[in-house]
Amino acid sequence: MDHTAEFRRWKAQCLSKADLSRKGSVDEDVVEFVQLLNEREQYFTTSSCAGRIILLDGGINGFEVQKQNRCWLLVTHKPCVKDDVMAALKKATGDAILKFEPLVLHVQCRQLLDAQILHSVAIDSGFRNSGITVGKRGKTMLAVRSTHGLEVPLSNKGKLMVTEEYIDFLLKIANQKMEENKKRIERFYNCLQRALEKETITNLHPKEKIKDKNNSSYTRKKKRNPEEAHGKCLTEENDKECENDDDPGISVSIFPEDY
Amino acid sequence: MDHTAEFRRWKAQCLSKADLSRKGSVDEDVVEFVQLLNEREQYFTTSSCAGRIILLDGGINGFEVQKQNRCWLLVTHKPCVKDDVMAALKKATGDAILKFEPLVLHVQCRQLLDAQILHSVAIDSGFRNSGITVGKRGKTMLAVRSTHGLEVPLSNKGKLMVTEEYIDFLLKIANQKMEENKKRIERFYNCLQRALEKETITNLHPKEKIKDKNNSSYTRKKKRNPEEAHGKCLTEENDKECENDDDPGISVSIFPEDY
Repeated sequence: MDHTAEFRRWKAQCLSKADLSRKGSVDEDVVEFVQLLNEREQYFTTSSCAGRIILLDGGINGFEVQKQNRCWLLVTHKPCVKDDVMAALKKATGDAILKFEPLVLHVQCRQLLDAQILHSVAIDSGFRNSGITVGKRGKTMLAVRSTHGLEVPLSNKGKLMVTEEYIDFLLKIANQKMEENKKRIERFYNCLQRALEKETITNLHPKEKIKDKNNSSYTRKKKRNPEEAHGKCLTEENDKECENDDDPGISVSIFPEDY
Repeated sequence: MDHTAEFRRWKAQCLSKADLSRKGSVDEDVVEFVQLLNEREQYFTTSSCAGRIILLDGGINGFEVQKQNRCWLLVTHKPCVKDDVMAALKKATGDAILKFEPLVLHVQCRQLLDAQILHSVAIDSGFRNSGITVGKRGKTMLAVRSTHGLEVPLSNKGKLMVTEEYIDFLLKIANQKMEENKKRIERFYNCLQRALEKETITNLHPKEKIKDKNNSSYTRKKKRNPEEAHGKCLTEENDKECENDDDPGISVSIFPEDY
């Protein structure tokens, strides 16, 4: 079986199966996004989480524990209020931790070039920790990840270590991060739509490929017009939240600008 | 120029340049690791941070700010004590945040297969957020990243929102994470050394390739003997800190086990 046929078979198999997550359905905030990808022949999503605030109880003294020993005290994909967290914290017996986790999306791609296009759009939309995995059988996967998290220990062996005022302050930050995450998803959706439309046009009119060579959809447009229409992609200049900044402690020999 | 010659040129150029980081040198805990990679013809490192505890002052109300507006109150690659953080916090005027950031390493790879091998070893060693980037000119980069962070808001507009006792508790956790990060680096170093030795033997005796087909160095060995010698790679079974667990909220259609 050739690679394209094999990819089609994987896709059909994957999309026909039941959603195996505990929730059993795609999060509201990424439904459209997941649809956009699954409608295209070159992609399908294998897992997604739109972003969430979670409170978990588990490892004593900050040690990570096996997932099965963790207790999920609270999970929400919507902004969260102090009273909900305070109520959930009453059930904590170990070291409770509050986390904000931004969008995580796994997309299987037909070929490396498809993954490169999606990867470039993800990076430009602010999902800077995204990366490609290529398996030994050629399965190509893009994991979309952001740098935009929060992980805050709240209790020690069941004893709350912070005040209610602090939890209120923390939730304001977590809710803002959730809002920012939503904006990034929207930006990602719009940028991807444009990139895919452009790709379709290029495929329909192959001659355009030559003209378009220096402006391909997977090029990071560093000098993009900041006044561009809504849903614009981020550039290096307006989003400095990059793990590779020249912060103290990061030893940089040289980082190719356009690798 | 063929691709291998071009890669050699990039490598020579990169390694001959001065270290552009503020620190100006490679972190002690990754010196050996960086050397191991740079000695191999198929790799060179472009940036590295062994892992650090940082205290930064910046965005009001938890908003991320441009890097140039952030003030670094404290940066350390060693375990940290409460008094150092309390002293640094006195200088905070905005919203101070304490972070633990694990190893970040960027490695340029000669070809995709070299990146796949390194990626697989990184994942097996616990660096589960690692990913490959392939640029339009074919530059192939592996970013090594862990899921193992901490990000804790401490003050609001210069006002400390937590107690000294909490900071003490928090630093114990941050220091433990730093210790765990060190162990992962060691494990990564040992696993990589073995994978590279194996690859060298395979290259010297190409016939072995056939025998070795089902046990290649970039295969995730899910059923590895847990009693194996020190520096063993992690398996799915003994490290559940995977972003793709079936936690509530992650919608999973199917996640190919062996993609």
